[in-house]
Amino acid sequence: MAVGQCDFPIMHNVNGITLGTSNAGIKQTVRDDILVFQMAEGSTCAGVFTQNAFCAAPVHLAKANLAHNPRWLLINSGNANAGTGEQGMQDALQSCVEVSKVVAGLAEQVLPFSTGVIGQPLPVDKITLALPTAVSNLAIDNWDKAAQAIMTTDTFPKGVSKVISIAGETITINGISKGAGMIQPNMATMLGFMATDAKISQTLLQDCLALAVEQSFNRITVDGDTSTNDACMLMASGCSAVPEILAGTENYTIFADAVMTVCKQLAEAIVRDGEGATKLMRIKVEGALTDEEAVRVGKTIAHSPLVKTAFFASDPNWGRILAAVGRAGVENMILEDVQLFLDDVCIVRNGGRADDYTEEAGQAVMDREEITVTVKLGRGVAVQEVLTCDLSYDYVKINAEYRT
Amino acid sequence: MAVGQCDFPIMHNVNGITLGTSNAGIKQTVRDDILVFQMAEGSTCAGVFTQNAFCAAPVHLAKANLAHNPRWLLINSGNANAGTGEQGMQDALQSCVEVSKVVAGLAEQVLPFSTGVIGQPLPVDKITLALPTAVSNLAIDNWDKAAQAIMTTDTFPKGVSKVISIAGETITINGISKGAGMIQPNMATMLGFMATDAKISQTLLQDCLALAVEQSFNRITVDGDTSTNDACMLMASGCSAVPEILAGTENYTIFADAVMTVCKQLAEAIVRDGEGATKLMRIKVEGALTDEEAVRVGKTIAHSPLVKTAFFASDPNWGRILAAVGRAGVENMILEDVQLFLDDVCIVRNGGRADDYTEEAGQAVMDREEITVTVKLGRGVAVQEVLTCDLSYDYVKINAEYRT
Repeated sequence: MAVGQCDFPIMHNVNGITLGTSNAGIKQTVRDDILVFQMAEGSTCAGVFTQNAFCAAPVHLAKANLAHNPRWLLINSGNANAGTGEQGMQDALQSCVEVSKVVAGLAEQVLPFSTGVIGQPLPVDKITLALPTAVSNLAIDNWDKAAQAIMTTDTFPKGVSKVISIAGETITINGISKGAGMIQPNMATMLGFMATDAKISQTLLQDCLALAVEQSFNRITVDGDTSTNDACMLMASGCSAVPEILAGTENYTIFADAVMTVCKQLAEAIVRDGEGATKLMRIKVEGALTDEEAVRVGKTIAHSPLVKTAFFASDPNWGRILAAVGRAGVENMILEDVQLFLDDVCIVRNGGRADDYTEEAGQAVMDREEITVTVKLGRGVAVQEVLTCDLSYDYVKINAEYRT
Repeated sequence: MAVGQCDFPIMHNVNGITLGTSNAGIKQTVRDDILVFQMAEGSTCAGVFTQNAFCAAPVHLAKANLAHNPRWLLINSGNANAGTGEQGMQDALQSCVEVSKVVAGLAEQVLPFSTGVIGQPLPVDKITLALPTAVSNLAIDNWDKAAQAIMTTDTFPKGVSKVISIAGETITINGISKGAGMIQPNMATMLGFMATDAKISQTLLQDCLALAVEQSFNRITVDGDTSTNDACMLMASGCSAVPEILAGTENYTIFADAVMTVCKQLAEAIVRDGEGATKLMRIKVEGALTDEEAVRVGKTIAHSPLVKTAFFASDPNWGRILAAVGRAGVENMILEDVQLFLDDVCIVRNGGRADDYTEEAGQAVMDREEITVTVKLGRGVAVQEVLTCDLSYDYVKINAEYRT
């Protein structure tokens, strides 16, 4: 189940970036579950990682290795290698060593990523056995297979491909992401991998990614749970004919906008595939004093189980939205100044139900599959948007049966 | 559905406090849905109220009238009179006027309370018609009927009765509470009404109540949603033969301990009746630097939909608990110092799964109906406990169908 059209797009080639997958049998016996990215020599790579204090062993290692001009990414699904103690770190290190043997590179140039169940030992032996096949499969047009290999409870693979033109030449930006539960990214998403053939320095690439993630992956929530393994990576091979993208230039603006667009689309795809989701809600908070305040109100609404179940039931029970705004911790908020809209239908005005509101009008909006909730706080000019999905029987079912 | 034994206890009489109920047909056609408390002249009354910025009209009015030596409480279920704007305040005021007419008292000596659906006009006419019956029913032994009259999605009435002896005389403390969803009380619970025949000043009674609520109702959560209508009241009629309870005395300590016990038992009853609950979890956080830190970690675990669904499934998926601790926002937490227990089974030690942990031992605990999760942070000496329940299909069902 997923909200809206979720077909995997046609992915353009990103010169200098190849991908290979294979089946290691970690949890999947049919689908591929490991993915190797290879970047051309001279590529740069930026990354943002989970803020969960107990981040997984591979996250620690990927952060550290980011400083060693990485050339390869190894991703496995089915096991998060989190909560695995010292053995987990040894296993992550060993995985990188195994990649380095097959590709004849350096272990510290490999960034490891894991996603799946927490607290079980990583089956390094299975990964080792499957690695040669993944590496021999490395190809420029494997984005669809890659998107499938990183899935866990996802119901569809998620990809975005964008081509921009600069001075008659093109730059391509591709991205894939995964995630359907334990989703409230904090400075990163569950897993997102993007690659471009742009030529750009590592520091500028890092700035560009951090800004884009803040406005995209950090604005979505499925269940308010921040994963131990979140990571979002942006690789740049430098193989495009467009000259190097430099800070403060118009070209940087064009490039950064495109990265932002790709991030937003990948983030939205994660919400559309939220565990058990039947509806997509855009929570738009306007008139806040600060961006932080707007995000706080948006996330409080987006996390409310009562709001989420009302949307699941297509019930315009707007009192639950108002109650969530009221408990968001915004100081000196005045109820009489707050307006609440479901799409273009005004529900709350002057501290109570709008005079012209009818239950029929509210119901008509709630029957839709994609709904924008707009809260106007009447305090300032800050505007922020948070994306979320509803809470259904299937969310409970998926998470109650996750390990069975 | 509720967790454990939830029989309504035998309630002792509280001299000076009478209760009367009747059916106003607000939402219920069979069960009584309005309740009037009458306090003897000279009684004192303390209250704590929701911190939700958009608190309901009756909450505003009850807060204000608390200063006017209240003699009556009017409670209705089925309609929260919240998000109802200026009309809501008029309706709350009118309700108090109607009570004052029937009892021949002053309207400002009436405290109104409402619980139920948010955003619909309060049917004052129905309440007015039902009031004379409720008042004519006023009796000292109506606690069971009172507990039933304030229920909404509750599946059982909640009451506690406690008698303490001081210098050969007795003081009785009774309490009833309601609440099953939109439960994360913040300085108050959904609705709790307690009465005692102790003689005690209003200011000391208020101190006593605030302290007890902080350690009881403010330590429970069902779904993390703080209601617009939370209130917890403690009435003291002064009719006991025990001399006035004075600050700083041993008698105050005895009395305050008893009030704390009543609050904790009423709060626990709310969690046992959490919407759709099949399990009761005590989240005990030890070794925190501060109480605030311990509560923060406890509530992060208690709010996690992933943790709650794992408990529903009786799945010892402890990685979700660890992930919740990790995202609780505690600075400089060291994973290697953290220990995690399910009842007396140690699951996590030294940053990973405990060497002696077996899935069978974890499963044996998870199969129980009441489970204590202990997290030892290894940072300090603060200890706090938070109570919560699991997240089941029925939570979604109850809240998806609430208004139908």
